[in-house]
Amino acid sequence: MINLEISSEFPYPYYCLMKAFFTLVLSLIIGIIHAQKFDDLAKTPPMGWNSWNKFGCDINEKIIREMADAMVSTGLKDAGYDYLVIDDCWQIRRDDNGTIVADPERCPSGMKSLGDYIHSKGLKFGIYSDAGTATCQGRPGSRGYEFQDARTYAAWGVDYLKYDWCNHGKQNSEASYTTMRDALFKAGRPVVFSICEWGTTKPWEWARDIGHLSRSTEDIINCFDCKNYWGGMGVTGIIDLFADLYKYAGPGHWNDADMLEIGNGVLIPAEERLHLSMWAMFASPLMAGNDIRSVSKETVSILTNKEVIAIDQDPLGVAALRWMQYGDLEIWFRPLEGGNYAFCFINRGSQPVTLDQDLKTTVRKYAIDANFMVRDLWKHQEIGTTAENVKGVLLPHDVLMVKLTKK
Amino acid sequence: MINLEISSEFPYPYYCLMKAFFTLVLSLIIGIIHAQKFDDLAKTPPMGWNSWNKFGCDINEKIIREMADAMVSTGLKDAGYDYLVIDDCWQIRRDDNGTIVADPERCPSGMKSLGDYIHSKGLKFGIYSDAGTATCQGRPGSRGYEFQDARTYAAWGVDYLKYDWCNHGKQNSEASYTTMRDALFKAGRPVVFSICEWGTTKPWEWARDIGHLSRSTEDIINCFDCKNYWGGMGVTGIIDLFADLYKYAGPGHWNDADMLEIGNGVLIPAEERLHLSMWAMFASPLMAGNDIRSVSKETVSILTNKEVIAIDQDPLGVAALRWMQYGDLEIWFRPLEGGNYAFCFINRGSQPVTLDQDLKTTVRKYAIDANFMVRDLWKHQEIGTTAENVKGVLLPHDVLMVKLTKK
Repeated sequence: MINLEISSEFPYPYYCLMKAFFTLVLSLIIGIIHAQKFDDLAKTPPMGWNSWNKFGCDINEKIIREMADAMVSTGLKDAGYDYLVIDDCWQIRRDDNGTIVADPERCPSGMKSLGDYIHSKGLKFGIYSDAGTATCQGRPGSRGYEFQDARTYAAWGVDYLKYDWCNHGKQNSEASYTTMRDALFKAGRPVVFSICEWGTTKPWEWARDIGHLSRSTEDIINCFDCKNYWGGMGVTGIIDLFADLYKYAGPGHWNDADMLEIGNGVLIPAEERLHLSMWAMFASPLMAGNDIRSVSKETVSILTNKEVIAIDQDPLGVAALRWMQYGDLEIWFRPLEGGNYAFCFINRGSQPVTLDQDLKTTVRKYAIDANFMVRDLWKHQEIGTTAENVKGVLLPHDVLMVKLTKK
Repeated sequence: MINLEISSEFPYPYYCLMKAFFTLVLSLIIGIIHAQKFDDLAKTPPMGWNSWNKFGCDINEKIIREMADAMVSTGLKDAGYDYLVIDDCWQIRRDDNGTIVADPERCPSGMKSLGDYIHSKGLKFGIYSDAGTATCQGRPGSRGYEFQDARTYAAWGVDYLKYDWCNHGKQNSEASYTTMRDALFKAGRPVVFSICEWGTTKPWEWARDIGHLSRSTEDIINCFDCKNYWGGMGVTGIIDLFADLYKYAGPGHWNDADMLEIGNGVLIPAEERLHLSMWAMFASPLMAGNDIRSVSKETVSILTNKEVIAIDQDPLGVAALRWMQYGDLEIWFRPLEGGNYAFCFINRGSQPVTLDQDLKTTVRKYAIDANFMVRDLWKHQEIGTTAENVKGVLLPHDVLMVKLTKK
């Protein structure tokens, strides 16, 4: 509303110019006030563990504390997995003041105490809510309570918020996530803001200044190569989607390929290596999703492959693109800091494929010559130089991930 | 998120059916929980006084208290104007808990005290906020604070909320107004919810179950026949818009033609009579917008025309449609409770028009025969029956409003 009384004789053109100017200035001011996220967080993709893939709603504080212990004892923390994120079902209702209340059966000692325990292990504390009226499991959502919830999280010492998109009705996604971003910023405690909008309104196009990571898909299905009709996909479906998303990722704003299914009993070891390798190529957050209290040595060795993790965490922050496809064989390319590169060969088919690939090439603006060492990041050894072709046999669903380092 | 782990062997059709069913049930439950407004309010269009048209941002508690006194002393309250609505600029900031704070310079005794004073006069207490991040005057908006603000209003004894649409960014209007509706309902104190969305997203199509009244236009311009290029209009422009809106009005969900400009120094008395008459035909809320501390007898006599107000407040709650147009002459028709009817003749032009109109007709499902008394609601006298034509001369910008009562 503009406070002007106008008669028929009013000089409209002048008034209209004034109103246009006023509106512009106000919009700019409001834009500056509100265009805020914590910019120094997540300069590389966040890593950690999330309760959902393994436990779903069946969580409690005993599991969470044991998982914090296990993240340290298994070496996951040392490998970089330092966010422990409690997904849906920690919350149960709101009190008379509207404050969100933890489920007293699942978390009797309260979220502050649980967060303190997580912090005492040198880990960071992640939590979950939803932009709609209720979470996906029907718990209270944050819609209309954003600033209050953000203050509560800050008081509990929360470092990371996964913010889901169930029960959003006709809400606009960008506006809804912007409101929680503003609320977290106003609460003052730096919080990594994980947008979990499932890709339905192309969040890669708007999430950059709102969240630090943004989910691109429905929940991952624990399988190598399957899809369902409402958009859920296994590993290969997500890989296909990410072929077009590389240009939207960068420091502080990552495309989230969803939590890992490594160690959850379905994928074979080759598929698990491929899974981690490709998530690293995407510069996706790496959130383990298995029960790491009872994790096998093989799973730990996959999850903690520091050379693969280093690709994920490369400070240049440029995500991979799908450089070549030859039938079931795909070769992905990622430029790295210091003029180095990663290539990832994956065999999506059920037959072995023979490799004989020259890596001297130009992809986008990146020209690769014969002067690079080629290192296999799963065998942890040099396998030659770019003077020769990469040769070998890639078994079904297996991966060859190499790093090219300037000689 | 759905807590299921799926391998390639998973029986998809069964799973999909289960998910669809689960989603449906959850949606229904959430729909029932949230589809709530205070249904027993505003069974007839709200009436009162609002500070904006006369005072804009220049309000303070002295003005408000004096206006409450004047609403009683002038007889406006007795005529039905019982909501005193404080528009934008009463608020200034939020405190550390996020609670909205009244401007201590404008309202030093606080909103609770001001509300108590308004209530002590037998009036009801209305307030203003905005669905966006800031109000139209740059004060704090309710976006992300909806439930907290609603609790605050309830604690202050607020009876009416005008809820504006500035600085909404990419918010969805229906979703934004739904959130505040839910917040008011949850706070528990019955509040008339006045949607002020300016018509940009056709609120008449979605506001029915959300608010008790819904603005259809930009702010009214204080003129009889003017428009501006961004959609503001005077009396005639709003009349044209309302020709198509009658089907959306009804008890508890009214189309709001905006606050009255009667007594604000621009409209001539004929135009003011026409203004009030047509707002009554629309079943629009009647919110005076002038300084009623210094109101003239003529303005009071127009605003308090009980016969015209009775048309506005007719319990059948069916709004008027534009029945006939003859050049500058328009005849509007409104069915009333008890098988009675109102007709409103308006002359939009600058020349007198001669009336000679047979009112025996059928409009929609309503058949009118020769057996009605015809009463002039501005002259307060019977002028004949429907056995004869209505005859006379209508001066420029003047109105003839008649009620047809069964003999």
